Amino acid sequence: MNFSSKLLEKAVDEIAQLPGIGKRTALRLALHLLRRPKSQTLQLTGALEDLVEKVNHCQQCHNLSDTPVCEICSNPKRNPKIVCVVEDIRDVMAIENTAQFQGHYHVLGGKISPIEGIGPHNLTIDSLINKVNQGSIEELIFATSSTIEGDTTNFYIFKQLEGLPVTISTIARGISVGDELEYTDEITLGRSIINRIPFENSLNQS
Amino acid sequence: MNFSSKLLEKAVDEIAQLPGIGKRTALRLALHLLRRPKSQTLQLTGALEDLVEKVNHCQQCHNLSDTPVCEICSNPKRNPKIVCVVEDIRDVMAIENTAQFQGHYHVLGGKISPIEGIGPHNLTIDSLINKVNQGSIEELIFATSSTIEGDTTNFYIFKQLEGLPVTISTIARGISVGDELEYTDEITLGRSIINRIPFENSLNQS
Repeated sequence: MNFSSKLLEKAVDEIAQLPGIGKRTALRLALHLLRRPKSQTLQLTGALEDLVEKVNHCQQCHNLSDTPVCEICSNPKRNPKIVCVVEDIRDVMAIENTAQFQGHYHVLGGKISPIEGIGPHNLTIDSLINKVNQGSIEELIFATSSTIEGDTTNFYIFKQLEGLPVTISTIARGISVGDELEYTDEITLGRSIINRIPFENSLNQS
Repeated sequence: MNFSSKLLEKAVDEIAQLPGIGKRTALRLALHLLRRPKSQTLQLTGALEDLVEKVNHCQQCHNLSDTPVCEICSNPKRNPKIVCVVEDIRDVMAIENTAQFQGHYHVLGGKISPIEGIGPHNLTIDSLINKVNQGSIEELIFATSSTIEGDTTNFYIFKQLEGLPVTISTIARGISVGDELEYTDEITLGRSIINRIPFENSLNQS
């Protein structure tokens, strides 16, 4: 591209480094910034600077937080004895949206994936095992993604915790609410038959 | 969405105000910024601030420029007597990429579009007519988009300039280089027959 303004070129280059944004989209965004009031863009850049300068990870659960200990871990109404193990902050947000879980979280920061060069020591597994060793956790709920990497991560943590007095469960895999049986893949359907639950238990679940 | 960090929420809200970026994409981008080195994000925000604070419009052609008069208008090798009229800075970039035009530009800043509430006075048409009135321009080349709005804009300017000693031309509409005849729409094909050129002229065009 042939820019008449070096500053525009620099801005486009920087925007185009973001994932999923090419040079053309970056130019469209830069021209949009030039058309709207300056103050809006300064609000955007201020928010991005605050984001990278001030947001840190909760010392207890490794979730993103503005304070040393996050709102969930410091909430006295929540049960610290039940800990839900997730990969990512987005998983915390998804589970919080259900309003069905009142325990704490532990954010691993990813899943074990030899192909991407991510081993157990790149995640916060050691910190989780330390917490369990301290004896304050009664139940761990694995809520990682239903993939080979997610299952591997669960199994690795499970092996590390063998012999410790902690209950380990995993969230149910089954047919999504609203799905038709004939379009469900056979592995999910098979698991949902093996893991069937008493009918009474399914009543009164909103 | 249920954010554990107010600063993250603020950043996501600001990013999601950009055109074509929804909340989910904004969150993905914000989390990407948190994963990469801080300095890269400070470079991005610095570039965006420079963009809105320092980039302005060339006093002569209204193209974006870091200096009061842009590089094209201040280049002594270019011919100021031939002016190409375009809608947008992106059109300047597209024509510059062809390396076929050595004159100046005039950026209108859009096209007349009653539906979007854009009239002649929202564009830089007055400034163009002033330039022509000063008598230094020999030829105007309309290079607006081939739409009703583009044609309307051309016609409006043409009427305003009636009687002034300036040649007005428009870029050729025809079959794109590499296109097959049978897939060309009939209006383009019809125009290309009406506006046929001597065969000798088509030789030696790279």
